[in-house]
Amino acid sequence: MLKNDEKMPPLKVDVALVHYPVINKKKETIGSAVTNLDLHDIARAGKTFGVNRYWVITPYQEQQQLVGEIVDHWRNGYGKRAGTDRAHALSLIEVCAELQTAVQGAITAYGEEPLLVATGASSHGALVSYKGLREKIWSGTPVMLLFGTAWGLAPDVIGKAQAMLPSIRGMGEFNHLSVRSAVSIILDRLLAVEVD
Amino acid sequence: MLKNDEKMPPLKVDVALVHYPVINKKKETIGSAVTNLDLHDIARAGKTFGVNRYWVITPYQEQQQLVGEIVDHWRNGYGKRAGTDRAHALSLIEVCAELQTAVQGAITAYGEEPLLVATGASSHGALVSYKGLREKIWSGTPVMLLFGTAWGLAPDVIGKAQAMLPSIRGMGEFNHLSVRSAVSIILDRLLAVEVD
Repeated sequence: MLKNDEKMPPLKVDVALVHYPVINKKKETIGSAVTNLDLHDIARAGKTFGVNRYWVITPYQEQQQLVGEIVDHWRNGYGKRAGTDRAHALSLIEVCAELQTAVQGAITAYGEEPLLVATGASSHGALVSYKGLREKIWSGTPVMLLFGTAWGLAPDVIGKAQAMLPSIRGMGEFNHLSVRSAVSIILDRLLAVEVD
Repeated sequence: MLKNDEKMPPLKVDVALVHYPVINKKKETIGSAVTNLDLHDIARAGKTFGVNRYWVITPYQEQQQLVGEIVDHWRNGYGKRAGTDRAHALSLIEVCAELQTAVQGAITAYGEEPLLVATGASSHGALVSYKGLREKIWSGTPVMLLFGTAWGLAPDVIGKAQAMLPSIRGMGEFNHLSVRSAVSIILDRLLAVEVD
């Protein structure tokens, strides 16, 4: 892991928070609602860890509009005067209707296709280790991390990813982190400096 | 770090979320309001990582009552039927008026005084490394991790701690994680299994 005094390479990491298609408790495919706190917490974590863009993916027009209004409030409205740090963090957010648009945005930014990496409470398929993915990122590979709201990404989305990260495990059999916690932990594992 | 098939020692880790005394943006000492999502996200992270108790510290009686009502809803009311996982996580929560009560609770649980470890966006004083603290925890030392709401723990609380963890650093100069993100990341660094 790099130390502070080494030259930092630019990281090419995007976060995509998927609201459709995701699954519910019964593993049925659903669409979930955007929440204000997902926008804020994940934008703040993204900004802390050097994420390039935070894609909020929802096909619902009124939800897209809601995201736009929240972001606009903090970027340009009263919120900007109240807290410039928030405006700074929320500038990461880009809302779009489907994953493909986010991927296209990343291709435009990086000049190449990002590696799509899925996450979830039960991991399966082509697993990539945190260490392995961190090395790829720090050597300049563009990576888009996919997170699911509700009970997680639908199999269809996981199927589009080239790899999946192992689920986050603690001492308990309990395994129900909020998506805000999961994003924070995964960004820390992949992007933190000076951990020892 | 332990692997899954090794015998797990019991962890003696408590989380204390302090609502008073904390500081505001101008570094004045204030009391903050309890939020529903702090209760849920931190309880879920705590349960995932094997935390023994999650102390919610507020001197305000109506706030204590609010916490009691939320926890009761999930433990015993409609929420219990809707989601037993939530009830399971929220069972970690104990509300009290001041830090000393939480410390006393930990002494009762563990038979010895816990090591009080402060956290914050700007760390100073007697720093303990994540690695060093993890070793202490996994060898059985009782530890209470102190987290501040609003702009962080008041100096008075930090002064009561025996040590402080280094702040969480990413690539940016930005350093404004939500307390929910900070708790998640710190529990992961100290308590995760099978990270590589």
